[in-house]
Amino acid sequence: MKFVIIGGDAAGMSAASRAKRRAPEMEVIVLEQTHDVSYSACGMPYNLADPTREMDDLVVRSAQVFREKQNIDLRTGHRVDRIRRKEKKVTGSTVNGEAFSANYDKLLIATGASPIKPEIEGIDLPGVMCLKLLDDGRRIKNYIQENRVSRVVIIGMGYIALEMAEALRTRDIQVAMVKPRPTLLPWMHSDLSEMVRQELLSNGIELYPGHAIKAIEGNGGGLKVVCDDITLEGQMVLVAVGVKPNSELAEEAGLELGPSKAIAVNRRLQTSDPDIYSAGDCADAFHVVTGQRTWVPLALRANRAGWAVADNVLGKNVELEGIAGTAVFKVFDLQVARTGLNVKQASKAGFDPAETVIKSRSRAHAHPGSTTIMVNLVGDRKSGKLLGAQMVGKEGVAHRINAAAVALHAGMTVEKFSQCDLAYAPPFGPVWDPLLTAANQLIKQL
Amino acid sequence: MKFVIIGGDAAGMSAASRAKRRAPEMEVIVLEQTHDVSYSACGMPYNLADPTREMDDLVVRSAQVFREKQNIDLRTGHRVDRIRRKEKKVTGSTVNGEAFSANYDKLLIATGASPIKPEIEGIDLPGVMCLKLLDDGRRIKNYIQENRVSRVVIIGMGYIALEMAEALRTRDIQVAMVKPRPTLLPWMHSDLSEMVRQELLSNGIELYPGHAIKAIEGNGGGLKVVCDDITLEGQMVLVAVGVKPNSELAEEAGLELGPSKAIAVNRRLQTSDPDIYSAGDCADAFHVVTGQRTWVPLALRANRAGWAVADNVLGKNVELEGIAGTAVFKVFDLQVARTGLNVKQASKAGFDPAETVIKSRSRAHAHPGSTTIMVNLVGDRKSGKLLGAQMVGKEGVAHRINAAAVALHAGMTVEKFSQCDLAYAPPFGPVWDPLLTAANQLIKQL
Repeated sequence: MKFVIIGGDAAGMSAASRAKRRAPEMEVIVLEQTHDVSYSACGMPYNLADPTREMDDLVVRSAQVFREKQNIDLRTGHRVDRIRRKEKKVTGSTVNGEAFSANYDKLLIATGASPIKPEIEGIDLPGVMCLKLLDDGRRIKNYIQENRVSRVVIIGMGYIALEMAEALRTRDIQVAMVKPRPTLLPWMHSDLSEMVRQELLSNGIELYPGHAIKAIEGNGGGLKVVCDDITLEGQMVLVAVGVKPNSELAEEAGLELGPSKAIAVNRRLQTSDPDIYSAGDCADAFHVVTGQRTWVPLALRANRAGWAVADNVLGKNVELEGIAGTAVFKVFDLQVARTGLNVKQASKAGFDPAETVIKSRSRAHAHPGSTTIMVNLVGDRKSGKLLGAQMVGKEGVAHRINAAAVALHAGMTVEKFSQCDLAYAPPFGPVWDPLLTAANQLIKQL
Repeated sequence: MKFVIIGGDAAGMSAASRAKRRAPEMEVIVLEQTHDVSYSACGMPYNLADPTREMDDLVVRSAQVFREKQNIDLRTGHRVDRIRRKEKKVTGSTVNGEAFSANYDKLLIATGASPIKPEIEGIDLPGVMCLKLLDDGRRIKNYIQENRVSRVVIIGMGYIALEMAEALRTRDIQVAMVKPRPTLLPWMHSDLSEMVRQELLSNGIELYPGHAIKAIEGNGGGLKVVCDDITLEGQMVLVAVGVKPNSELAEEAGLELGPSKAIAVNRRLQTSDPDIYSAGDCADAFHVVTGQRTWVPLALRANRAGWAVADNVLGKNVELEGIAGTAVFKVFDLQVARTGLNVKQASKAGFDPAETVIKSRSRAHAHPGSTTIMVNLVGDRKSGKLLGAQMVGKEGVAHRINAAAVALHAGMTVEKFSQCDLAYAPPFGPVWDPLLTAANQLIKQL
């Protein structure tokens, strides 16, 4: 049995490792176009924040370890150009321009996602950066150092943009953020995103939402981001407007695509060709709340799907439950978390949603150090079910969201969720957990 | 309709407030034997830790507010001695020795719990203290101040004892803890309780488990706790060996009692007399995992049950789901949390339990400031269901436990729990949440 994997990041290497661990005799070939495998991409903003740390600290396991300790046939610098399904073969070329091919019995496409590169004049100027691969991180870190960057313009305001804004401010670099859409975090309830906005402003971030970007111009030593009515200057421009699935290979091979052109997979992670699996940021998933296909490229799913593919290649029948779209990020002193659907998504998915927003505290009455936690909870009037949750606060948010995520997986009603026996102690929250207070309020709307 | 409530703490005042809010015309009488109502009892150790704070900071709402703003007929200093069920009447006497009586249509017994006072010679000596009522807190705080207490012996090692040990050390008071049983936290997996033990020792707490206490002796200005083989000295002795339900009134009135002699209630919070409800630390509850009656006196349940009683008195039909025994406490820099059953309790309840213990990290690979998190997970071999969880760590434990608690309420299998989409970001945990890593391990045992 020959198991070929295209892509050596989270999903690909999880699958390769697990397959080799469970079936040491199996031939496992990983074709990775870069020279980096198995690194914590999500850790890059935090690494960038600290000039004393090496970007390579983020490497979890080196290519050498995979090759020598795990006997994985890991071929870095190998770019696959084509999947020939009839011949069960992939072909491509190496960084040195040599052609290669590899036959497979089972194939895994784990090509990940790429940053969206908007069509703006000047997007290819030196100093205009994206953050996705470890090499991007290295490049940005070097650029900051070598050019003594003191001011950066970030195009985009998603969570990577926000994490990068914090990282740069930590290094005392001025940050201006700009984007065409008028709202900071459009998926978030406005009362909660207002807390995020205040946190950004109080940390000296300049925010320019609602400005269409016309061009990036070189400006002597620096760069200019030219919008319709304003022009922002900086020595570096970071483009962080989102990512798109690397599904071109799959599409060209005639495999079905799902939402956002991600590769469509069933619960066993098989594409429309049962011998070809897909996992990680290039593949879609079923949403546990809607039951519909969705595309939420996040690390946990990539790892989990990698394992499930290995198990299925080895003849098991592992079906993945689906995702709730649970995510958390840090913005300076704030924790921002979400799971499930917001009220707009819920309407769109055919629910009859009601929502509530409450303000609670991170610690008990009269306990010192208490701060505000805001919760937005969405439920369905028809079924009474919980549909989603969002939270913002300085503490007690990042892990609290998981209680709501589990409730979504369980298909719990808001009523039942409101009865859950959650932990209480004065340093950690009020007697009524903020999620329960929100649930108690939401019940009245249903 | 006359609604009489015995006891003016969490459950009693929650019920009174809700009843008055929903039915302003209803006559609501609260008979409370002390002069304190509605205070954060759980906050007392933290208040004691800070000599600059008043104990009365913990009062959430004063008796005056309940009387004047909420029109509750709140009678403090009123001790009920007897429930005359045939006459639907309670009788008692005030602090001034005057007899009183009150007729009821519906009665709520919310008499709470009292500290267990072990039968030890010298237990009534001055300087031997218990912590339960706000007056206990005031007394201890004054005693420490007035006697310039520099060393305390704590009898007991439960969570109140541990919270008090921390509070006293914060004031630079020496603490020795002693108890007859040999293990620190017998309900906890020993790998996890070892972390707690190390935390106590590294904060200078002297631990003497496994020493039967023979007597407490006065010793000039101080006190001696005399054990079989050792004698511990201090200016104050704190007895914190647990609590017992205040169910004597109910028992004398012929009402059924449940486990630990708590007052037995159905899911509507009715005792064996349908016109008499019970809620709070004096009443039992159904365990969501075993379905059996259990007694876990904690604040959230008390508040929730108080509300449910008010609703049912007002003619609604509110049934409470039950409890999972979720609890969290802080010991110096550690967070210690549990929910559901440990492996012994699971065996006793008729399950065929398997368990796992894993060590994980509080932050992602290579993220600075990461510390150890230990997780113990218990599942049932027969049904595959999750039965319980315990966690210890310096961060990310207090709220993480809630994910497991919700899974218990949902009756989730370990397999299904392992597939939950939990939040990930490098500052808040590894890609695989420690609970998921534990679940992945536990699956192999089932």
